[in-house]
Amino acid sequence: MAIEANGSLVGVIGAGTMGAGIAQLAVQAGHPVAVYDAVQGAAARAVAGIGKRLDSLAAKGRIAAEEAQAAKDRLSAIEALDALSDAVLVVEAVIEDLGVKQKLFAGLEGIVGPDCLLATNTSSLSISAIAGGLKDPQRLVGMHFFNPAPLMPLVEIIDGLATDPELGTAVAELAEAWGKTTVRCRSTPGFIVNRVARPFYAEALRASEEQAADFATIDAVLRESGGFKMGPFELMDMIGLDVNLAVSTSVWEATGYDPRYTPAWTQKEYVAAKRLGRKSGRGFYEYGEGVDKPAPRYEDTRDVTASGRPRLYRSRGKTATSYGDGRILMDLTLDLAGTPTVALAPAADTPNAALEATIARLQREGKKVVVLEDVPGLVVTRTVARLVNEAVDALYRGDAEEEDIDTAMKLGVNYPRGPLEWGADLGFAYIREVLDNLEDVYRDGRYRASPLLRHLAQADLLMDT
Amino acid sequence: MAIEANGSLVGVIGAGTMGAGIAQLAVQAGHPVAVYDAVQGAAARAVAGIGKRLDSLAAKGRIAAEEAQAAKDRLSAIEALDALSDAVLVVEAVIEDLGVKQKLFAGLEGIVGPDCLLATNTSSLSISAIAGGLKDPQRLVGMHFFNPAPLMPLVEIIDGLATDPELGTAVAELAEAWGKTTVRCRSTPGFIVNRVARPFYAEALRASEEQAADFATIDAVLRESGGFKMGPFELMDMIGLDVNLAVSTSVWEATGYDPRYTPAWTQKEYVAAKRLGRKSGRGFYEYGEGVDKPAPRYEDTRDVTASGRPRLYRSRGKTATSYGDGRILMDLTLDLAGTPTVALAPAADTPNAALEATIARLQREGKKVVVLEDVPGLVVTRTVARLVNEAVDALYRGDAEEEDIDTAMKLGVNYPRGPLEWGADLGFAYIREVLDNLEDVYRDGRYRASPLLRHLAQADLLMDT
Amino acid sequence: MAIEANGSLVGVIGAGTMGAGIAQLAVQAGHPVAVYDAVQGAAARAVAGIGKRLDSLAAKGRIAAEEAQAAKDRLSAIEALDALSDAVLVVEAVIEDLGVKQKLFAGLEGIVGPDCLLATNTSSLSISAIAGGLKDPQRLVGMHFFNPAPLMPLVEIIDGLATDPELGTAVAELAEAWGKTTVRCRSTPGFIVNRVARPFYAEALRASEEQAADFATIDAVLRESGGFKMGPFELMDMIGLDVNLAVSTSVWEATGYDPRYTPAWTQKEYVAAKRLGRKSGRGFYEYGEGVDKPAPRYEDTRDVTASGRPRLYRSRGKTATSYGDGRILMDLTLDLAGTPTVALAPAADTPNAALEATIARLQREGKKVVVLEDVPGLVVTRTVARLVNEAVDALYRGDAEEEDIDTAMKLGVNYPRGPLEWGADLGFAYIREVLDNLEDVYRDGRYRASPLLRHLAQADLLMDT
Repeated sequence: MAIEANGSLVGVIGAGTMGAGIAQLAVQAGHPVAVYDAVQGAAARAVAGIGKRLDSLAAKGRIAAEEAQAAKDRLSAIEALDALSDAVLVVEAVIEDLGVKQKLFAGLEGIVGPDCLLATNTSSLSISAIAGGLKDPQRLVGMHFFNPAPLMPLVEIIDGLATDPELGTAVAELAEAWGKTTVRCRSTPGFIVNRVARPFYAEALRASEEQAADFATIDAVLRESGGFKMGPFELMDMIGLDVNLAVSTSVWEATGYDPRYTPAWTQKEYVAAKRLGRKSGRGFYEYGEGVDKPAPRYEDTRDVTASGRPRLYRSRGKTATSYGDGRILMDLTLDLAGTPTVALAPAADTPNAALEATIARLQREGKKVVVLEDVPGLVVTRTVARLVNEAVDALYRGDAEEEDIDTAMKLGVNYPRGPLEWGADLGFAYIREVLDNLEDVYRDGRYRASPLLRHLAQADLLMDT
Repeated sequence: MAIEANGSLVGVIGAGTMGAGIAQLAVQAGHPVAVYDAVQGAAARAVAGIGKRLDSLAAKGRIAAEEAQAAKDRLSAIEALDALSDAVLVVEAVIEDLGVKQKLFAGLEGIVGPDCLLATNTSSLSISAIAGGLKDPQRLVGMHFFNPAPLMPLVEIIDGLATDPELGTAVAELAEAWGKTTVRCRSTPGFIVNRVARPFYAEALRASEEQAADFATIDAVLRESGGFKMGPFELMDMIGLDVNLAVSTSVWEATGYDPRYTPAWTQKEYVAAKRLGRKSGRGFYEYGEGVDKPAPRYEDTRDVTASGRPRLYRSRGKTATSYGDGRILMDLTLDLAGTPTVALAPAADTPNAALEATIARLQREGKKVVVLEDVPGLVVTRTVARLVNEAVDALYRGDAEEEDIDTAMKLGVNYPRGPLEWGADLGFAYIREVLDNLEDVYRDGRYRASPLLRHLAQADLLMDT
Repeated sequence: MAIEANGSLVGVIGAGTMGAGIAQLAVQAGHPVAVYDAVQGAAARAVAGIGKRLDSLAAKGRIAAEEAQAAKDRLSAIEALDALSDAVLVVEAVIEDLGVKQKLFAGLEGIVGPDCLLATNTSSLSISAIAGGLKDPQRLVGMHFFNPAPLMPLVEIIDGLATDPELGTAVAELAEAWGKTTVRCRSTPGFIVNRVARPFYAEALRASEEQAADFATIDAVLRESGGFKMGPFELMDMIGLDVNLAVSTSVWEATGYDPRYTPAWTQKEYVAAKRLGRKSGRGFYEYGEGVDKPAPRYEDTRDVTASGRPRLYRSRGKTATSYGDGRILMDLTLDLAGTPTVALAPAADTPNAALEATIARLQREGKKVVVLEDVPGLVVTRTVARLVNEAVDALYRGDAEEEDIDTAMKLGVNYPRGPLEWGADLGFAYIREVLDNLEDVYRDGRYRASPLLRHLAQADLLMDT
C-alpha cells in the first residue's frame, strides 16, 4: 500500500522542533502538509520558520528556488484538527504525556478517514499504551525521528501490541521515501537506540564516580581509543543532562528498576544543582567566553628504555591488581594498530620502572598514553561489553532484528561499529568473560550477561576447539 | 471463646461480590446478618441477590426450602452502622484503600461492644497498618476469603502485629464453623497464597519474553506436564490481567522492589494496551463468537527409529547447550510415568537425528511432545523450583506453618501438590541446584535460594551419604 | 578567613530543637545570635528556652552567672529576616523540604552581604540541590549537627558540587571554635554518619526476620559482644522508628533503590502499626509504668565437663551447618579476652554434648553465653563486616577521608572503633571473605564488597605471603 506523495496530505501535530522538522521533511518530499498546535499561533510560527529554512537552503544552492517555493506553497498552518479529514498520515509530536497523546488520537479517530495512518514520535512512551484507548489501535505506529529530524538519517518504526504489521511497513516506506533509513522494532522501553545506548553514559559516570579519571580524560579515551565521535560527558552536555537523565529514568522505571539502567547518582546531583550542560552554561564542563575546556591528562613524554619483556595485557574486566603478578592492563581500542591513544592501568604491585618503560615504548610508537586508576573493565572495555550485551539482549527478546539494531546504533548515535558486529569481531566469549568478571566484582546485576550472550559465547568456544 | 451462630449477629460492610458472598456464608451458617454499604441502595441490592441465590439453591435441591426462607429472614440490609452495636463479628470488604479501612474501623470502635471481633477481607494491605489507628488493635484479624467466597474452601486468617492470638483463633473457628478450611499466617505482603503463587505467573511471562514458546504451548506444558488445573496465561485472562498485575505490584512494592516479584514488562504492556483478559474480550488470548483458542504446538508424529542410547536428561536449571555434549533436556513432570505430555529442549549441538529419534520414542510411549527453545529451567522446572523456594522462605521467616502453606496453595489456587511436599518429593538439594543454576545464568536475584532451602538441601545431602 | 566571635552576628533560622541548640552553641561561643522562625512567637519561645538552659547551667556551676547573663544579652528573637543583613553566618534548620529551603536561601541572598556564609543543617537533602537555585551557590555549605546539638561533639561539614572549599573550611573553623569536632565530606546520600550506619539497623532487622533471636538478645549481643553503646532495637526505639525509617528510605531512594539500603519490611510494619518507639509508648519494646524490658536469653549455667577438643570456630559469614563437620560458630567480639558475652550457633549436625560442653567451658571462663539460630554471619559479624564495607566504599568514591570517616562514626554514633580501623584490625581479607560468603548465601546485592575492599583484601593477602 505505497502512498504517493503527490496530493497526499500529511498532518503534523505539535509545532515544536521535532514537529517542524518532520513537517519540513514531508513537504520537501512532495506532500501537502498541514501543521497544528494547541497553542494559538505556534503552528503559524513553525510554518514561517520552515519557510525560512527552505529559503536558506535555496540561497545556499542546496535546493532549487522553485522547489523551495513549491514546498512553501504546499505547507500550511491549521487552526483546527478538522482540516485533517483527508490526511493519509498524521504524525504527532506533542509533549511526552500519555494522557495528552491518548486524548489526541481518540479525537483524530473521529476526524480522519479509515485508511489514514496514525504515527507518534514519542521517544519514551509505550506505543501499545498510546493506542490503548483507540477504537482501531491497529493503525497506530511509532515513528521515532532523531533531532534534528531533517538531518538525522534514522527513523525507528515501532510496532505496538496491536499494530498491523502491514501498516507499520507502510509508514516505514513513507519514511524511506522521505530519504530516511528505517529500522523496525517492538514497543519496548527506549526502543532500540535509547535502550542500547544507556551504558555509554552509565559506564562513564560510574568510572568517574570511582575516580578512574576526570571527565575530559574519560571523554578522550572513549573518543580516541574507543572510536566514538563524542565522549559521553561532552555528549550529555550537548543533549542536556536533564533530558538524558529523563530517558534513563524512563527506561529504568519501565523495566521495574532494572539495575542495568539505574540512573547515576552523580548525574542526578548535577541536574539538582542545575548544571544541565551547554544550555545552562555549565554541565560536566563549563561553557562561556574565555572558558577553555580542560585538557585530557595524557602522560608527559618519557625518555626511558624498556628493559625486559613488557607485561601488558588487555583488560578482561578484572583489575590489574587482582592478578597478583604486577601486570599492566590496556583498555580496549577500536583499532589497535591505528589508535592514536592508549589507556593503561598499572596494578598495585607493578614496578614503577615497568610502567615507565611501557609508557615510553607506546609513546615511541606514536601513541598518546593515558594512565587510569585500576578500576575493573577500565573505560572502553566495560562500555563496549555492555553495549554488546544490550544489543544481544534486545535480540534475545525479539525486540528487533540483528541488522536493524546495528544500523540503529550507527545512524542514530554515530557509533563507529554496530554493537552486534563489534561483539562478533571481539568474540562473544571475550565479551562474556568481561561481563562475568565485572559482575563478579560489582555483584549488582548491572553486568549480567544476556542468556543469548552465554549461548553465543558457548558457540564461539565450540568453534575454537 | 466459641461463638454460637444462633442469635449472634454478624455485620458485613461492603456489598460487592466479596461482601455478598461472605454474608451468604454467614447467614447459611445460622447467623443473623446485617449488610451495610456506603452507596445508598447497594446493601439492599446485595441482600436481594443473596435471596435469589438461596432460592436457586433451594430450587436445585441443594438446600431445603425452609432453610432458604429462614436464611433470608435472618438477612437484612442496614442504612447505618449503628445497627451493628450488638454484633459478635463485623467483616469488612470495602475497597482496598488503607485510609478508608482505617476510618471505617475507627468508627466501628465507637459502635460495637468490647467483645465484638473485627475482621478485614483485605487481600493486599497490612493488617497491622489497618489496625494502626485503633484504640484496641488486638481484636482486628485478617480474614481473607477467595472468590467466589461461598464456593472456595479456603480462608486465610491473618494476625497483625497487635492481634491477640486467641481472637485470631476465635475468628478461625467461626470460619471453620461456616464450612471453610482455614490457614493461619502473619501479616506479610500477599499473605500466603498471593505471595507464594507469584512465580507461577512470573516464570511463564519470562519464558514467553524469552521466546521459549507461545502462550498456548506454555499453558499446555504447565497443565499437562506440571499438573496445574489451568495454565498461567489462561488463568491471568480469567482473573483479569490488571487485577493480577495489581497483586504483583503490591507485593513488589511492599518488599522494597524485591526482584523476585518485579512485575513483567509484558504484563504491564498488555494492561496498558487494555488487553485485560476475558472481561475485555482480549488478553493473552482473544475471546468472542467464533474465535478459537490457539492450539499448543505439539510435534507432529515422527516415524523414525532410535539408534543408539538416547541422551535425554532432566533439566537442572541450565541450558542444554551449556553442557556441550549434545544432550536433550526434559522439563519437570508432576508424574513422569503418567504424564500425557513431555516438553523437550535440544542443545545447539544436538544432532537432529537424535532429536527426531527421541521425539519418536516418546510418541510411541503415548506421549504428546512439545519442543521448547533451550531456555534455562524450561517452563515447569523453573516454576516449581521457585514455588518451593517461596514456600520455604515463608517458613524461614516464620510467616506460617508448613502444613498451612501447603494447604493454602492446594485449596486457594488448586495446586496439584503443596509446594513444601513437592520440594521434599523432588529433594531440596535438587531444588537448590536448579535455583543456583538459574541464578548463575540470570544473576538478578530472582532465583536466589532461601537460606532455609540451602539448609534443607544440605540435610538432604547429608542423608544421601 | 577566620571569623572572630566577638561582634559577628550569627543568624539561625528555624526555632525547633536543632535550631535552638545551634543558637545556644553560637551564643555561648561569644556571637551575637538572632533567631528567626516563620511561626509567629516560635523564635521568642526558643530564645526564652535557651535562656532557661543557660540559667540552669549557671545554677549548676557549669558556667559563670555573668557568662550566662552576657550570653542571654547577645541572644534575640527576630520577626523578619532583614535583621540578618549584617550576619557573618546564617544557619538554616527548618523542615526537610527542598522547596522550602531553596526559597529561604534565595530570599537570604537579597538580604545578607556578599561575604556572609550560608549553612544548612539538612540531614537528608543534597547540598547541591539546595544550592541549585542560588545566584552564588559557592557559599552554601552543609553543617550537620547531631541531636542534642549543644552536647553531641560532631559536626559534618558538607561540600556541595558548587561549594567553594575555602568557604567550607571557614564554616568548619567556626564549628571548631564552638567546641565541635568537624569532619568533611561531599554531598552524598546520608553524608557520612547516616550512610555508614545503615547496616547497624538493617542487619539486626534481618537477623530478627530470620528468627536468629529476639530483639533483647540481639541487642545484648551487639552491646556486650560487639561493644556498641546501645543495641539497634533500643536505639531505634529512642530515635523513633519513623525517623530512622525516613533516613533509611531517603538514602535508599537517593541511591536508586540500592539493595544495600532497602528498608526492612519489619520496620515498615511497626511504623504502619504506629509502634514508633519510646515516644509512642511502644516500639520494638514496650514502655510505661511497671513494664519491664525483656531479658536477653542467656543460657542457663551448665554443669558438664568438656570431653575432647572443642570445635569452636569464628564465623566467616557461612552457616555452621554448611561446613558439614559439626562445628560450632562464634560471633565476632570487640575484644575476645575481655568480652562478657559470647554468642554461639551450633550446626544441624553438632552433637548436643559438644554444644553443652562448649557452653559450660565458656561459662567457667566467666562468660555469659547466647545461643543463636545458625544464620549466616550471625549478628555482630555481619554487622561489622557491612559497616567496614560502607566506610571503605565511601573512601572508594572519594566521599570523605579515612580519618574523617572513623571520627564521624565514633563521635556521631558512639561506635567503639572506627570502621576503617576495625577493618584493618580484623584484616580486610577476612572482611571480604565474610561479605563474599554472605553474598553467596543471599545473592541480593546487599553484601557486595566495594571494589576498594577487594583491593585492600588483596593487599592484605600479598603482605601475608
